Amino acid sequence: MNPSEQGRFRYEGLDKVIHEKARLGILTSLLTQAEGLSFNELKHLCSLTDGNLSRHLTILSEAGLITIHKGEHLGRPQTVAMVTAEGRKRFANYLSVLEQVLADALPVTQPSSTAAVPES
Amino acid sequence: MNPSEQGRFRYEGLDKVIHEKARLGILTSLLTQAEGLSFNELKHLCSLTDGNLSRHLTILSEAGLITIHKGEHLGRPQTVAMVTAEGRKRFANYLSVLEQVLADALPVTQPSSTAAVPES
Repeated sequence: MNPSEQGRFRYEGLDKVIHEKARLGILTSLLTQAEGLSFNELKHLCSLTDGNLSRHLTILSEAGLITIHKGEHLGRPQTVAMVTAEGRKRFANYLSVLEQVLADALPVTQPSSTAAVPES
Repeated sequence: MNPSEQGRFRYEGLDKVIHEKARLGILTSLLTQAEGLSFNELKHLCSLTDGNLSRHLTILSEAGLITIHKGEHLGRPQTVAMVTAEGRKRFANYLSVLEQVLADALPVTQPSSTAAVPES
């Protein structure tokens, strides 16, 4: 094996904070909303329980990827989450690694399973 | 919020067995090698320790995604891993969800951070 292949499939840039499935969904939905999303909207979009969403928001916030604002909406307390500039940058880097995974893997899966990959 | 958006960013198809970073690397490298890869080749390509590689190969094998053959090479025992047909199919489905994540997220990250996404 070619020594230059060392770590070829390590994918070190798959940041664990972002890569976790629920957090990947939360970040993607927040990215589409410059003004942020409320706790209930996120719950709905990501199909998460209160406890899970709360736990993942804390992890994302502690990692500096999002900010959490406690405010009020129609007289009731409301939590709103927004992606930070740092979060946006780290997410873009993460996505470039995902693109690399697809570039590595799609050419070898498609010949035998084109039907399973609708966007090819 | 539109009720049809329920679970829009759930990404349920991100199979946890495949999504884990090290296993994603192992599966991608195995996919490129129809004849399989030895334990040492995988260690090298994925930059994993013996213990970690061994643990992840067991998980992938128990999930039916790979098979593990114990044989001999140049008189020494050798372990060779190969992707199963089922593994190839499940991986293709997984990749189609990754493509969806990129389709959702790239349009909103690229305008402000094109430099971080080299393949755009």
